[in-house]
Formats: sequence, structure tokens, C-alpha cells
Amino acid sequence: PNQYLAGLPTTIFTIMSQLAVKHGAINLGQGFPDTEGPQDIIQVAAEALRDGRNQYAPLTGLAELREAVAASNRRFYGLDVDPATEIVVTSGATEALAACLMAVVEPGDEVVVIEPLYDTYLPALKLLGAVPRCVRLAPPHWSLPEAELRAAFGSKTKAIMLNSPMNPSGKVFVREELELIAELVREHDAYAICDEVYEHLTFHVKHVPLMTLPGMRERCMRIGSAGKSFSLTGWKVGYVTAPAALASVVAKAHQVLVFATAPNLQRAVAYGLNKDDSYYQALSAQMETQRDLLRDGLERLGFETLPADGSYFIVADISRHAQGRGDVEFARWLIEHAGVATIPVSAFYDPGGETPPQNLIRFAFCKKPEILREALKRLEKAL
Amino acid sequence: PNQYLAGLPTTIFTIMSQLAVKHGAINLGQGFPDTEGPQDIIQVAAEALRDGRNQYAPLTGLAELREAVAASNRRFYGLDVDPATEIVVTSGATEALAACLMAVVEPGDEVVVIEPLYDTYLPALKLLGAVPRCVRLAPPHWSLPEAELRAAFGSKTKAIMLNSPMNPSGKVFVREELELIAELVREHDAYAICDEVYEHLTFHVKHVPLMTLPGMRERCMRIGSAGKSFSLTGWKVGYVTAPAALASVVAKAHQVLVFATAPNLQRAVAYGLNKDDSYYQALSAQMETQRDLLRDGLERLGFETLPADGSYFIVADISRHAQGRGDVEFARWLIEHAGVATIPVSAFYDPGGETPPQNLIRFAFCKKPEILREALKRLEKAL
Ligand SMILES: CSCCC(=O)C(=O)O
Ligand SMILES: CSCCC(=O)C(=O)O
Repeated sequence: PNQYLAGLPTTIFTIMSQLAVKHGAINLGQGFPDTEGPQDIIQVAAEALRDGRNQYAPLTGLAELREAVAASNRRFYGLDVDPATEIVVTSGATEALAACLMAVVEPGDEVVVIEPLYDTYLPALKLLGAVPRCVRLAPPHWSLPEAELRAAFGSKTKAIMLNSPMNPSGKVFVREELELIAELVREHDAYAICDEVYEHLTFHVKHVPLMTLPGMRERCMRIGSAGKSFSLTGWKVGYVTAPAALASVVAKAHQVLVFATAPNLQRAVAYGLNKDDSYYQALSAQMETQRDLLRDGLERLGFETLPADGSYFIVADISRHAQGRGDVEFARWLIEHAGVATIPVSAFYDPGGETPPQNLIRFAFCKKPEILREALKRLEKAL
Repeated sequence: PNQYLAGLPTTIFTIMSQLAVKHGAINLGQGFPDTEGPQDIIQVAAEALRDGRNQYAPLTGLAELREAVAASNRRFYGLDVDPATEIVVTSGATEALAACLMAVVEPGDEVVVIEPLYDTYLPALKLLGAVPRCVRLAPPHWSLPEAELRAAFGSKTKAIMLNSPMNPSGKVFVREELELIAELVREHDAYAICDEVYEHLTFHVKHVPLMTLPGMRERCMRIGSAGKSFSLTGWKVGYVTAPAALASVVAKAHQVLVFATAPNLQRAVAYGLNKDDSYYQALSAQMETQRDLLRDGLERLGFETLPADGSYFIVADISRHAQGRGDVEFARWLIEHAGVATIPVSAFYDPGGETPPQNLIRFAFCKKPEILREALKRLEKAL
């Protein structure tokens, strides 16, 4: 078998979820909501199965979904996008990431990535023969180190992968940081793959797509996710917004990787995207309430938490409680002794790089308030 | 953008389908049924949306679907497969092909492929840095040339991609041919990626999975497709059966490419796979009736047809009617002047290889008998 793939460890999400099941732990590890998205969207998906449109959808997606994605770009970010040529529907954001990378990199190209990072970024780019250049955010404020970022860009840079709002950190990149990134992308004639799946999950900060910055319209591939925007992570419907010249290449990658996505789910997502602003406001307000609940509880228990202005996640410093144990060991201990599953943050760093921080664990707060309260109770009891 | 991807032409299926729409032609080009699969399967999919299982499915698929795939392997081919470790559910067979290739090839490896071939095979393997070694079936009997096949295998061979029943030819490989392939795979310590999406669509010949031949159990990745087995091509649910050591690597490729597939569709497909033999018999009987209808009609009109014992497709020789035009030109002419869309078979050959045959076009017969009759009427009128 392929050496690199065969050598990849089982994803940390699977390991911790399996341990959680084994020990009857509350799963604040894997990031999926325990409340399902709007019933009317699900209803549309069910009805759409019944009217005889169950054959191949078009390669780039159903027109109604592409139009809804374009409208959403306009409504939320003032982006003017042609639904016919600038949108590609994918089987979730994971496929979108792979297709966007495939669309721009050649073997030997360098891709700048920001640690801590989502766990398919490195395998996806390495399997294409690209070379990662990692830049680390600095806890406890998740600050982006300008000098390191500048140094990571060079003559071989083909792209940067930017995840904002960011998993696992919960960081939402601010305009000043985005301006620096945009400057470097322009300067190096590079592309940006913008993983914005948590775009509608920010808490009193505004999500700014890199694509809206000067000169970035032609260089960005912006990825959205119905799973995250409608709390239906199983559906695996994603969408890429990109200038036509890039979108057509992303579409070719999609043709080779998957080809098309289930039409009934596409139709339901199109319906969902057209929901009015109050839906999106309620979603982020609910998530913010849950973040506050978890954050305040963790702080009370002596975990310092790091800023988390968006996403499903908040990271906590375990130093006060870990008694010298690393994050992996402590996270296992928490499952076994507190009955609460989390993800050690060291899992979000290049395994070939320098030793990552060992004092951080990630909690998912996309769970019902009563579940979060029960998890806090369990933690209190165990610590 | 990536040079190779950017240079890929628009898929022939999209081109011919768009022309068909433009000219109001009957679409016997792209292979999708115009009769939807069993309503009870669709009903299961609709109901499954409503009971709160719309978050991420497990990486390798829902247990109930993996069990159904294992049972189907046992029932139809006597293959004994562990549903826990030897099945990976994918987002359709296209993703399965990409994941299986990724699981075994490294840049520079050679992969044997048999022309005419399905249009994602070459891009998928070239994007991974693998090198195709093409062997051509010889019309008019689609015979597999032994000497050429032997010569295509060598010290760098990592795998063969075998599509049986085969698209576009309609060929079902017979045991003798499979034995030759198995011998070469064993001799070169290689793998076989077995695209068997049309496994249940054979006409009075038995489909024999390469995996059932001596020594092949450990070397084959066998791909099935719910779209083809249940006439629901839009659902994009596929499944790979492979020995555990390979399946675990295919799962890692799947993790990077897509991660998971919609749970409600998986549940409906599990239900469908458990249908009794009469369902599968009726499906192939219906398809055979349609093949006969189209084949006999084409023959009456002076098109010699090539043997087509399986799949959705039959290839016809256009020499009597083409008046010197090549297959691409003739296929366009048929759309415009007869109102019938087909696919020129030359599109199924490596564009970098020797000139392919120019006298063959592919007809899809996965269409209602009245549609096929109307298409024949139109052809008769135009010719
Ligand atoms: C695809 S499983 C992981 C879900 C997720 O985004 C996370 O937990 O980080
Ligand atoms: C994925 S579009 C092509 C469908 C098909 O298998 C064919 O027509 O050959």
C-alpha cells in the first residue's frame, strides 16, 4: 500500500469517540451538534426524494443550489458571484479542500498552513506531492506571528490554507491579520484556500472572508458547508466559491474525486441557504450561549480558556489540573475518570514538526446546555 | 492552476448531454436510467431523514450497510468478508476508484488499464503521479490480446484497473481472461482495482469477480455501486470490499477525500441490498429486454453491433452510415439531424496514445422501451 497513507494514524476523532463510547463519556470531542438542523430543511430533503430527480446531478451542482450560494455570498459579504461559472458544489468541505488543493498545486509546490490545523490538511497536500510550510499561532491569545508568516512565504509558495473561524482554536482572524495574509498572497502571486465552514458561527465579531480584501477576489477559493450552517454534518454538502478560471479547474478535480452530490440534499440546502437573517442570528446566538456556559464553567473549575470567537470549539489550558501529564494522557484520563471526552490539541500539529504545546485540550460546545452542564458537573466531581 | 487538470477537456458526457438538450435529442449518451429505482428504497431514505441521525456517519460507513455489503458478497459470490474491517463505504464509485488508487500507488508506479476505458481512470492515476500502461481490446469482439497484456505488466506494475462488466464496451470478462489477469497480478505482486458497478447487470452470462480467483482475495479491491444496482445514480453511494490490510488504507484515503457519506442514503442502500434474488433478476431481465430492443433495431438499420453482455451500454459500428465521418463528427450529426445523442467511443481512449478506432459509437439502453423505440424511429428517418 501507499507508504504515507498506511503510516497515517487513525484519526484522533475516531479514537476519542470510540473511547467515549467505551466509557460512557459525554462526547465533547468530535465536533457535531446534538441538536439537528431545522426540520423544514429535512422535510424538503425528504420530499425531494419523491419527485423523480434521483439521477446524477450536474457536475458543478444543481442550478438552484449554485444560485442560493451566490445569493448568500452577496447577502452576507457583498460578493458578486456568477452562479453559472463561479460555484462548485462538493460532497462536503473535506472534498472541497482536496479539490481546491488539487486545482492549484503541483508536486514540489509549497503550501503555507497555520497550526493548530484541521487533521486532513497535511495528508491532503502531502499526497499531492506538495510541501507544507507551517506557521504556529501563539497561545494564549492565538496571535499570528508576522515574522514567521512572512518567512513561510517564498518563491515556491503556491497557496495558503486559511481556516477562519478556525478549528480547533476558535480563532476568528481579524482584518489586520487578513490584510497581512492578503499582502503576502499578492506579493507571491499565490492562491488562498479559505476554509470558512464556520462562517455563520461567530460571536459578536464579524467574519470577514479573505476574498473580500483588495486583489483577493481572483485568488481565493472560499469553502462553505451546509453541515455546519444547518447542523446537519452527516449530509456532506459543501460549496466552493472561486473566480471562474479557478472554479472550472476545481470542477475538474471534483469530476475525478466524486463527480456529483445527491440532488435531494442539494435541493434542501438551497432551501436552507435562503432562510432569512433571523435563522443565522439564532444559530450563532444559541452557539454563543453554549460557549459562554462551557467557558464560564471551565474557568470556575480552574481551566484557563483561550479566546474562542467562533466555530464549535474552545481550547482550555490544563496546567492547573494535569499534574505533569501531557494533553493526550490527560484527555484519556478525563474520559476514563470524569466521563468527558475532549481532543488533545497536540493532535492538530504536524507530527514531523517541533514538539507542539502539551497543555491544551479542545472542548466542543455544539451540544445541548443540559449536556454541557452535566459535563461540567462530572469534571468538578473528578478533579 | 494545476496544468494537467486545467488542460483536461470538459467530460464528453457533459458535452453530449448539453448538445442533446439544445437540440431536443433523446439522450442515449450519458448512462443513467430514466426509470427510478424501487420506491420502497426511496421511502426508506425519506423516513431515515426524520429520526435524528443526520450527523456524521462513521468513516467506513454505517454498520448496517457494511453488513449488507458483506452479505451480498456472500450471497452472490461466496465471498466471506468481515463487515467490520473489510468494507469501506464511499461517496459513489468514482470516489471509491480514487481512494483505491491512492491506497496503493506511489508516484512513478505503473498501472495497467484496458481501453476503451471510463473517463476518470487516466486523470485519477496521473494526478497521483502514476503512469498508465494501456492495453486495447480488439473490436469487433472486444477480445483481450494476451501478448499485449503480458507486455504491459513489468517490474514497476503496482496495479491493474479492471472494469467488468465494462463501460463503454458492454464486455463481461470471462473466466479464462480473468485467469490470465490473475496470473499476471500474482506474478508481479500487484493489486487489482475491480470496478464492478454493473455487477448485477449481465445478460445470460455470469459475472465473476476477479476477487474469487485463487490468490486474488488478498489483492483485490472490489467496487460496487448503489446507483447502478438500484437505478439511483444520483445518490452516489459506493462500497469497496478489500482485505483488511488494504481496506484500512482505503479508509484513510476516504478520510482525506470525503470522510463520510449521508446516513439516510446509506440506510436505504442497506435495505436495498437485502432485497431477494427476484429483484436483481428482474433488474437484469428488464435491462436485457432493452438491450435486445436497441440492438435488434440498430442491426436492422445497418449498424453492426458489438457484443454487449452487461452494463448499460452497447457499441455500434457506424461504417455503413458515416460516409467517411469520424465517430465524433457522426455523433454530433446524429444529435442535430436524428435527434439522438450517443457517445463517440474514441473519447474512451488515452488522448496521448495512438489513434483510437473512429468507427464506433456507444448507445445507452438504460432507457424505457418506448424511448428506445422512438430513438430507433428517429434514426431510421434521418438515415
Ligand atoms: C470529520 S470528524 C471531525 C469533526 C470536526 O470537524 C472536528 O471535530 O474537528
Ligand atoms: C458520471 S456521468 C457518466 C455516466 C456513465 O457512467 C457513463 O455514461 O459512462
